[in-house]
Amino acid sequence: MAVYTDVSDEELAAFVAQYDIGGVLACKGIAEGVENSNFLLHTQKGYFILTLYEKRVERSDLPFFLELMKHLAARGISCPTPVASREGAMLGELAGRPAAIIGFLDGMWVRRPKRVHCAALGEALAHFHLAGSDFTMCRPNALSVESWRPLAAGSLDEADSIAEGLGAELVAELDHLEAHWPKGLPSGVIHADLFPDNVFFIGDRLSGLIDFYFACNDAFAYDVAICLNAWCFEPDLSFNVTKARALLDGYTTVRPFTPAEFDSLPLLARGAALRFLLTRLHDWLRVPEGALVTPKDPREYLKKLRFHQSVGSSSDYGLDH
Amino acid sequence: MAVYTDVSDEELAAFVAQYDIGGVLACKGIAEGVENSNFLLHTQKGYFILTLYEKRVERSDLPFFLELMKHLAARGISCPTPVASREGAMLGELAGRPAAIIGFLDGMWVRRPKRVHCAALGEALAHFHLAGSDFTMCRPNALSVESWRPLAAGSLDEADSIAEGLGAELVAELDHLEAHWPKGLPSGVIHADLFPDNVFFIGDRLSGLIDFYFACNDAFAYDVAICLNAWCFEPDLSFNVTKARALLDGYTTVRPFTPAEFDSLPLLARGAALRFLLTRLHDWLRVPEGALVTPKDPREYLKKLRFHQSVGSSSDYGLDH
Repeated sequence: MAVYTDVSDEELAAFVAQYDIGGVLACKGIAEGVENSNFLLHTQKGYFILTLYEKRVERSDLPFFLELMKHLAARGISCPTPVASREGAMLGELAGRPAAIIGFLDGMWVRRPKRVHCAALGEALAHFHLAGSDFTMCRPNALSVESWRPLAAGSLDEADSIAEGLGAELVAELDHLEAHWPKGLPSGVIHADLFPDNVFFIGDRLSGLIDFYFACNDAFAYDVAICLNAWCFEPDLSFNVTKARALLDGYTTVRPFTPAEFDSLPLLARGAALRFLLTRLHDWLRVPEGALVTPKDPREYLKKLRFHQSVGSSSDYGLDH
Repeated sequence: MAVYTDVSDEELAAFVAQYDIGGVLACKGIAEGVENSNFLLHTQKGYFILTLYEKRVERSDLPFFLELMKHLAARGISCPTPVASREGAMLGELAGRPAAIIGFLDGMWVRRPKRVHCAALGEALAHFHLAGSDFTMCRPNALSVESWRPLAAGSLDEADSIAEGLGAELVAELDHLEAHWPKGLPSGVIHADLFPDNVFFIGDRLSGLIDFYFACNDAFAYDVAICLNAWCFEPDLSFNVTKARALLDGYTTVRPFTPAEFDSLPLLARGAALRFLLTRLHDWLRVPEGALVTPKDPREYLKKLRFHQSVGSSSDYGLDH
């Protein structure tokens, strides 16, 4: 649920007048995204999403995200496309916040992804990686391996209250990942948060990718590893190798893995699991009183991490060498 | 902010298939209404509002509300119109809740109503009253004069914590209103909650009335009195007689007041102020811990009540005899 800022009808009319999209007919706050305020905007020219960027998003990152969406859309990737004002600006200001008008993208996210959705996801992710290859802006991954130990530090004292021995387990995993984290893998712009709620489908057809506000530069295969974690476990947290194979086949049909990527995937999957384990643990231990949002259980990602620790090679994910 | 229930893509597709509105293209929770869950629904046939009725709405009242909207729309009142399923039902069930698909109504609510908005409101309210005159279903007003004393009872002990002497003031006002409440005024279906957020405008043109979930049978002039309270005070709670005159002129141009209505308006306005004072006081004294919604300050309506107590006749509202 995300509408943190009320926008008056008068402010909105003045803001929209800077764009060539006609007058405002309707504007309704929508429950999408947790970092920003989002509104469905209906004007005389059609339907749009109006996003007000709230404090949790770095203002200096916004041009990267908006230019990326524009770049991807121009290369045929189905994603929300920022609308430029008459003066050519994709970023404006409304109600004291940075604001953008973005094309409305049809589709629903799938609560229970099936094999067919995983296959479509894999293909779309590979197309996204390829389409970003000539994007010239750069944003380092603030949540990659070197950030995990400082992130863990704030939670280690209380970690055992979540699961017995978790503190020691985290330290051992950090030691292992820091020592073995692969370097030099094919890299570029990754989505870095491609969970099911960020992938829209109409029926079984993938209609688009959304929410590029974690996008950054990192190894492509790490993005795949995030998706393996987010899409290929069942509600009981058992790994579904059929879905994983579909995802990986879909991906590698469009963009084949290098041998180094094939070899690294289990370690990258451990890293991806640890990354979400650590941020969830951080949020779980710091729930503000009267919080609007129930934090997600970090133990889900502890179980996923342990699964990947047990994996011998990428073949265990259903990927043929 | 109101999305209390998550609807899965699969449930939604099955629900929408009962209607002749094409397949689902998108569905987003929207922050509108506080009693129900509302979604913007895009299908192959257009844009709709999907409403899931949560616990605070009596299921047995739903046919009254939905039939009323249909009735009003058929008589040219611009309001959300329920869509019937192929089997002719306006009410279905989704995610374990009563649910309806309703036409999407353009417009924005006006944060700072001006004279022109009050005039348009008055006209629209009168047209609404006339259009409801041949509506045959009936729903008594559960929040009229006889309900106020029992409603106040639960707050009297703590009332003085809100404003000194408030408990005694409430009892005296109840005594006065019960003794003098008018009977036999022209009556019919009233909206009973026509605050600015329930009236949509596109620019200065009134585009529709929404949220009929307090609609009931009562005196028409009481509905006018509710609007006087909700629309004609400034943020500093001073009464704006220019706006009141515009509202009343707009109303009486379409549906003239009877002499009894003219005489009763100050008392009805006191009653309307007390009704909202009492429900706000009730909610204010019972804020649940970790509440999502900040309750509204009851003192606003205490000040409005005191203003109406000082009014000599309807002429003080700018209405000519």
